[in-house]
Amino acid sequence: MSSTEELKNKALQLIEKLSETNHELYDKHFLRTWDHTDETIKALVYCIQAFECMIKCNISCKLFTSGLAVSNFRDKSTRTRFSFHAATNLLGLSVHEIDETKSQVAHGETVRETANMTSFYTEAIGIRDDIFLGQGYKYQKEVADSIDEGYEKGVLNTRPVVVDLQNDEDHSSQAMCDLVHLIDQFGSLEALKGKKIAMTWAYSPSYGKPLSVPQGIIGLMSRFGMDVHLAYPEGYDLIPEVVEIAKENSKKSGGSFTVSNSMEEAFQDADIVYPKSWAPFSIMQERTELLLQGSAGKEGLEKLEKKCLLNNTKYKDWECTEEKMKLTKKGEALYMHCLPADITGVSCKEGEVSKEVFEKYRIKTYKEASHKMYHIASVIALSKFKNLPEILKKKVLEAPKKKLN
Amino acid sequence: MSSTEELKNKALQLIEKLSETNHELYDKHFLRTWDHTDETIKALVYCIQAFECMIKCNISCKLFTSGLAVSNFRDKSTRTRFSFHAATNLLGLSVHEIDETKSQVAHGETVRETANMTSFYTEAIGIRDDIFLGQGYKYQKEVADSIDEGYEKGVLNTRPVVVDLQNDEDHSSQAMCDLVHLIDQFGSLEALKGKKIAMTWAYSPSYGKPLSVPQGIIGLMSRFGMDVHLAYPEGYDLIPEVVEIAKENSKKSGGSFTVSNSMEEAFQDADIVYPKSWAPFSIMQERTELLLQGSAGKEGLEKLEKKCLLNNTKYKDWECTEEKMKLTKKGEALYMHCLPADITGVSCKEGEVSKEVFEKYRIKTYKEASHKMYHIASVIALSKFKNLPEILKKKVLEAPKKKLN
Amino acid sequence: MSSTEELKNKALQLIEKLSETNHELYDKHFLRTWDHTDETIKALVYCIQAFECMIKCNISCKLFTSGLAVSNFRDKSTRTRFSFHAATNLLGLSVHEIDETKSQVAHGETVRETANMTSFYTEAIGIRDDIFLGQGYKYQKEVADSIDEGYEKGVLNTRPVVVDLQNDEDHSSQAMCDLVHLIDQFGSLEALKGKKIAMTWAYSPSYGKPLSVPQGIIGLMSRFGMDVHLAYPEGYDLIPEVVEIAKENSKKSGGSFTVSNSMEEAFQDADIVYPKSWAPFSIMQERTELLLQGSAGKEGLEKLEKKCLLNNTKYKDWECTEEKMKLTKKGEALYMHCLPADITGVSCKEGEVSKEVFEKYRIKTYKEASHKMYHIASVIALSKFKNLPEILKKKVLEAPKKKLN
Repeated sequence: MSSTEELKNKALQLIEKLSETNHELYDKHFLRTWDHTDETIKALVYCIQAFECMIKCNISCKLFTSGLAVSNFRDKSTRTRFSFHAATNLLGLSVHEIDETKSQVAHGETVRETANMTSFYTEAIGIRDDIFLGQGYKYQKEVADSIDEGYEKGVLNTRPVVVDLQNDEDHSSQAMCDLVHLIDQFGSLEALKGKKIAMTWAYSPSYGKPLSVPQGIIGLMSRFGMDVHLAYPEGYDLIPEVVEIAKENSKKSGGSFTVSNSMEEAFQDADIVYPKSWAPFSIMQERTELLLQGSAGKEGLEKLEKKCLLNNTKYKDWECTEEKMKLTKKGEALYMHCLPADITGVSCKEGEVSKEVFEKYRIKTYKEASHKMYHIASVIALSKFKNLPEILKKKVLEAPKKKLN
Repeated sequence: MSSTEELKNKALQLIEKLSETNHELYDKHFLRTWDHTDETIKALVYCIQAFECMIKCNISCKLFTSGLAVSNFRDKSTRTRFSFHAATNLLGLSVHEIDETKSQVAHGETVRETANMTSFYTEAIGIRDDIFLGQGYKYQKEVADSIDEGYEKGVLNTRPVVVDLQNDEDHSSQAMCDLVHLIDQFGSLEALKGKKIAMTWAYSPSYGKPLSVPQGIIGLMSRFGMDVHLAYPEGYDLIPEVVEIAKENSKKSGGSFTVSNSMEEAFQDADIVYPKSWAPFSIMQERTELLLQGSAGKEGLEKLEKKCLLNNTKYKDWECTEEKMKLTKKGEALYMHCLPADITGVSCKEGEVSKEVFEKYRIKTYKEASHKMYHIASVIALSKFKNLPEILKKKVLEAPKKKLN
Repeated sequence: MSSTEELKNKALQLIEKLSETNHELYDKHFLRTWDHTDETIKALVYCIQAFECMIKCNISCKLFTSGLAVSNFRDKSTRTRFSFHAATNLLGLSVHEIDETKSQVAHGETVRETANMTSFYTEAIGIRDDIFLGQGYKYQKEVADSIDEGYEKGVLNTRPVVVDLQNDEDHSSQAMCDLVHLIDQFGSLEALKGKKIAMTWAYSPSYGKPLSVPQGIIGLMSRFGMDVHLAYPEGYDLIPEVVEIAKENSKKSGGSFTVSNSMEEAFQDADIVYPKSWAPFSIMQERTELLLQGSAGKEGLEKLEKKCLLNNTKYKDWECTEEKMKLTKKGEALYMHCLPADITGVSCKEGEVSKEVFEKYRIKTYKEASHKMYHIASVIALSKFKNLPEILKKKVLEAPKKKLN
């Protein structure tokens, strides 16, 4: 049996599993993983993997003949912006980028109005809004609510699905793509039970990095019976509500959730390590207030940055080195990162990870990142097509035995 | 009969009407409504409505398998930029945005050359150029003429249609979309005969708003036997030539055209009110001269802005309030706006319309805006496909009974 | 026989010739013409011409059902940016523009990582990098190598082809499009043998123009037995290595390669003249060093610009005038330019070419430019589809006799 035939069979098995999953994503938005049931998370995993098999054997995943996918990045982005384009192109949509510096959005229009005005022929809206603590998720929710109103009142013919591309609480596309990577590496979702993951802070010479990556990781990985160990220097807390969610999840899933101020403790016997810098919660709150003041807050922001960077330097030893990796399970824990990493001696003088550790796992981190576009495509497909498994099955079965090129 | 079947039948009726219309848009550009015959305007209305029915029952309107639609926004835009993308995506084209800040256009290239260089695989060119009075339409015409020359001399394989997305004289896509909204609200084009529409100036805390919206409205609505009442404070004149066109149109169509300096007079017994701010013609002329001077005109521009804003404040009572709405026909005139409106207490302290009036008509203004993409699509389709009714009929008749999703 | 039938037959003949050509572009990148065999150059020419015939008779050239084409312009561009979009749209791809000012690329990410992160669903990557002498080609090569690594290590499902859109050494898409123009004008590739082409410097009031156009011309035209005459004022040398390549090519192809410091000498009896400004090699080297210094090099850059512009003014007589054109073969040499040209009295006071000469050849220069999109499409098609002639033949034979519009 050819490798293509094997992949097709694997795709069919995944589609079968997908069809057996009782998910609730149809006609819903996807803003935070913890708004959704375990069945929905599973459906996403199967859908992501099915799409990946299909693309590997060159089977078209086009579900739309036309239509727009609006992207709204309220922060710079290369990778997620690319993933959104790739995901929506895969499904047959065309990306319309709303660039607030070019548009009138910055000129006092209400969110509600703009949301409707840019949804007349739109199937999906991807939003990144992670700059202001306490604002990003709220903004996404406001857009989602406006869309729902517009659809109910007959302004919109279809209801576009709002897809989180990072907010101040969750970075759901990253967390889901990390989950699929773990499943790839450990064999199955079930195999993650009992595995220890160390989500730790790491030193970085930059400042103001969002909290959404560690929050996304602890919010999601705590659902599958893993031993989640969160470690950071004193003062570098995450949003308390999200930490509560992770605790609750761990209880329910039969895993554990530990918080410490020691990278070593976290690394001890870990199966997976995820060392990543972030700014302390309290600093991010102060920063939000100053940012919202506009030019008046400028001086305060500079002081805050200086203070924060100075404080960071106390924790330069929070670096993922070969030495620290020896503490992990057989010295062979899986290193993860959302990229780009601050690599000591490569992208900065002193950073999150040593050159040697990063290089050893470099190709794996690339593969980790490769799932993001399929996650975004899966959210859209599951939200828009009730009979998705049926449609995908037909595509796989009717694909020509030999591809054109 | 299912709702989808009803919509299909309605689409077929509209396509039939379209095929009976003796329009002259094939192979032509569309820059100002008054360059085109009544039959062409009617053809556009039927085409817009047919496309809307088709999309509502999920019938593909794709007419091209590939090809570009170039957009050239010489001013910021969220809504029209979106509409152009949606319209051209609907037809199967891909938007190529010419951004003059990124491109060499700003570096002294001739319009003629750039027009040809960006038309090699282009089916439509959308242009917004409304900043400089006396320049926008001229620029659009120059591009259109260059395209025609390039096509005739064999440089271009196809002749892209130039579509106005707002110039200094007309905002044809807005006016056409407003016309379709009126037909929706009053039942038919014929039902507009004898209806009073008040196109009035309104106070805004901003300055330099283009004249093309009111000009587009009086230039178009005067063609269908409506009683057009244009009202503005002394000094806030529109371009005299356009006012002349509206007068002529009214005579021919059996309607009336009145100009006054009283918002109350205009609102009296009106069926429709369209209160919208604009800058006075003479100010816009002065402004154009200063803008063309570049940095040398900067000081003058600041003075002009101050003077103009100060003058505006004399007319803060030009606000569309519930009180003023009581003057209209049964106190129930249709409120219209091209959006975004300056809403008192919402988007500004004092503005064009009170919060209460706007909220009452908010959803209707959203629906008003929804037609713009279909207008743009209709201009392109009618200009490029001689046998459009035949093609659309085939699409409707061959559409599957049950849609995929 | 209809004109469409003639074009179809011509397309079939070209596809036949393409299939007989033993090219080596499959699965390869295309960064400089001199990296590729004569057979590959010929295959590109046939493919470009076949695509042009197909588009003229409205036959779809779509080869992909979905997929991205990433463009990375590290310098401003209107025309080549458009050509890349048109070329990739023709093939069925969607352009994803990496804008370094928007993205994190500017924030110290390694080229290797970004290359992989933006290739997960990418079939082609177009790069313009012509600002820094000694950097552009190197950067393109680094991206290409990273892609190859990512593909080999299983990060990428497909290997995108990297397409040069201008680097510091070659401007291959321009040179290839100029070659096809010459074939159009002189009848065949064979007919170019023995023709004299004058690639000469010309005066321009601007500074820092890249060397890649003249280098691309001498590097490519020297391969077909032409008499290549390169002329420039003392000090305006090109990169010595590229001049060496041109010399070698001329020897092999049975043509000649002459360098002089006289525009008149170059024009004497020339069949083709290509007068075009560029900055001297040494100045570009100095400039690169200063540019790489960032703000520290600013003062030096200003001085360098002044010095260079002053030096340029010594050579204002290097203008392509009617007088000079009389020196050429029968006074009727073909004038070529990559556009936009600095036209005396039109786009500048004194420039590369007189108004009269340019106007005479204006439409021809537009046609010259029209081939660029087909070159880019051909590189992608030949690199990605092993059985391209077979696929294209099928498309031509199965095209409906009558087109839809």
